[in-house]
Amino acid sequence: METIVVGGGAIGLGIAWRLSQRGRDVLVLERAEPGSGASYHAAGMLAPITEATFGEDALLRLNLTSAAAYPAFLRDLAAATGRSLQSGAPGTLFVALDRDQLEALERLYEFQRGLGLAVEWLRGSRCRELEPALHPAVRAGIGAAEKEVDPRSLTAALGCAVAAAGGRVRSGAEVARLLWTGGHITGVALTTGEEIAAPSVVLAAGCWSGGIAGVPKEVADAVRPVKGQILRLRPRAGEALPIGHLLRTEEVYLVPRSSPARGDEIVVGATVEEQGFDTSLTGGGVYELLRAAIEVVPGVREMKLAEASAGLRPGSRDNAPLLGPLSDPPFGPLSGGWGAAGLVVATGHHRNGILLTPVTADAIASVVCEGVVPEAIAPFRPDRFARACC
Amino acid sequence: METIVVGGGAIGLGIAWRLSQRGRDVLVLERAEPGSGASYHAAGMLAPITEATFGEDALLRLNLTSAAAYPAFLRDLAAATGRSLQSGAPGTLFVALDRDQLEALERLYEFQRGLGLAVEWLRGSRCRELEPALHPAVRAGIGAAEKEVDPRSLTAALGCAVAAAGGRVRSGAEVARLLWTGGHITGVALTTGEEIAAPSVVLAAGCWSGGIAGVPKEVADAVRPVKGQILRLRPRAGEALPIGHLLRTEEVYLVPRSSPARGDEIVVGATVEEQGFDTSLTGGGVYELLRAAIEVVPGVREMKLAEASAGLRPGSRDNAPLLGPLSDPPFGPLSGGWGAAGLVVATGHHRNGILLTPVTADAIASVVCEGVVPEAIAPFRPDRFARACC
Repeated sequence: METIVVGGGAIGLGIAWRLSQRGRDVLVLERAEPGSGASYHAAGMLAPITEATFGEDALLRLNLTSAAAYPAFLRDLAAATGRSLQSGAPGTLFVALDRDQLEALERLYEFQRGLGLAVEWLRGSRCRELEPALHPAVRAGIGAAEKEVDPRSLTAALGCAVAAAGGRVRSGAEVARLLWTGGHITGVALTTGEEIAAPSVVLAAGCWSGGIAGVPKEVADAVRPVKGQILRLRPRAGEALPIGHLLRTEEVYLVPRSSPARGDEIVVGATVEEQGFDTSLTGGGVYELLRAAIEVVPGVREMKLAEASAGLRPGSRDNAPLLGPLSDPPFGPLSGGWGAAGLVVATGHHRNGILLTPVTADAIASVVCEGVVPEAIAPFRPDRFARACC
Repeated sequence: METIVVGGGAIGLGIAWRLSQRGRDVLVLERAEPGSGASYHAAGMLAPITEATFGEDALLRLNLTSAAAYPAFLRDLAAATGRSLQSGAPGTLFVALDRDQLEALERLYEFQRGLGLAVEWLRGSRCRELEPALHPAVRAGIGAAEKEVDPRSLTAALGCAVAAAGGRVRSGAEVARLLWTGGHITGVALTTGEEIAAPSVVLAAGCWSGGIAGVPKEVADAVRPVKGQILRLRPRAGEALPIGHLLRTEEVYLVPRSSPARGDEIVVGATVEEQGFDTSLTGGGVYELLRAAIEVVPGVREMKLAEASAGLRPGSRDNAPLLGPLSDPPFGPLSGGWGAAGLVVATGHHRNGILLTPVTADAIASVVCEGVVPEAIAPFRPDRFARACC
């Protein structure tokens, strides 16, 4: 075994695929089933532009880089697996339903324009031309050329791609501890006590990353679960989806898609809750999602509520991921520079895990195989929170 | 086999139990699992008073009779099975949240008083004293001494009671056809083709009653599925239920209980929809239930949404059940009077199936065993819709 990847979500599988493609001998250890964590619940919006938030410029650039990498990533994946996951979505509409939302939307538009993002201001009538199912109250919208990908199809395809490239994935293998010897990682121990040796370990365990013994404290402390409740609705038999665009308001998003596995659906998400590892649905959470979705697309009332679920995003202190090698092992400094300790981190992707899968997979593969930290991920050093305290 | 009961819901099992107790050799044929139809989804309010509706006096009397019979019925059931299902609920509060609801509540109160029902008018402050979790906007309420029973525990206990009394229940046995010979029923045929002979058949197949060949047309045409979406919420770990009373508004009801099987829960119901045999949840259905529940008890927001489901009530043309023998077989008149044809009907209980289980079970047992139609069910002849047309 050359490299163990801890975590079989989109991030871990994406990394394992790229490593396997480069000829690395890779084993993914997944505590449950591949793709059953945050990836399973994710909506799969590839929305760097309409997710752009004040004060997160570095993250925006990373998001844009990954969105730009997505088409080639999916083409590669289709070539490897025969599964085409390209989205047909005509883009995102971020709409305002009342005066307050309109003012906020105008500020967002100015902010986006200031960043040079490709956004278009649309009058309400134009929004309704594009999406006749929108509530008549829609005042205006921002249009952006964004896509989506079905996260469940993505992780399924990545799992196949890993196998096709010679990698392995073990389900039900929960890592309890990273094993260190003389300041270098030597493998992992499972909760069963089984030890698996490897000179290189990638930590991609999402919100569970902090619970693994031997993970450096500055990494473990930086990652926490951020609960999201999310709904999936389907049209009645014989009816079409009411919308084609990805839709957003300041309260909710709606992602329409035709999933190969599940047929037509709209994903409505998502709450953002600090509730530890709790994954309960709540009366208020489901209520607010339905209310906000019905407010913008009244036809959601008539759709079947096919699924309601809650997942745990790996949140970080600054909402940006932790990416790259550890310069030092957890028990003291080590000569040899970045990556010498053998542990590479890829977690804390928060709301952007699906979007950031291509850039993360490619960059982490470069770190592991070449010992090089690509410029794209340089601002996201996994030990940046430790340094911030000093 | 002396008597076949078609349908293993609360009604069919209740009848089978009472028949078995009287020494009848009884077989219940259930298309799926016992208690998995309308009974599974039902809230279990035993609410003859607050369900009382203008123009349904005969049904009100039947409901009151059955509510009065419930304590003894449950005592018998506990004696037979060792399971106590007695409710600890302190009664029902039917509350008004705004001026319009207040005026409607005043009219309802006058109507109930006119019928001599035991209802009490409560000021808003008194309602909040009784239930501090009520929304502060509650203007007034009607109090009534009503109870509840957990329908899933009820059908489970009835299944045990049937077995304990020597009856049998077959799951996955779907009746396709009633068998008639010379104007008398001779048994049933299953969808598998298997025929089971019996001189006496009780039709208690709920909304599926009309789909069985050989059921007299006036019965088959009178019963239809009426869809109800319903929610079950649970408190967070370590927290208590926010309410003790059964609560109603004109939009929603909330039934708090501590289920032996599931622990503390509040059942929030229910939509009333004409959607044929469709049992989908819908965005609008779940939304309206949550909205109305949160409006009257804001603490519902914090509760776990444990279950959302949809069942099919057996609706009838006048919302009252079809109870008793067929005077004539479906293929022509028969000498010998009521019950001679061997088919006894017990379906169409609509919103009142759980409430009406005791009176239905006792009355139908009298019909089958003694050929007597008890006065309580006389207004609910199963052929009353045929006669109404002539």
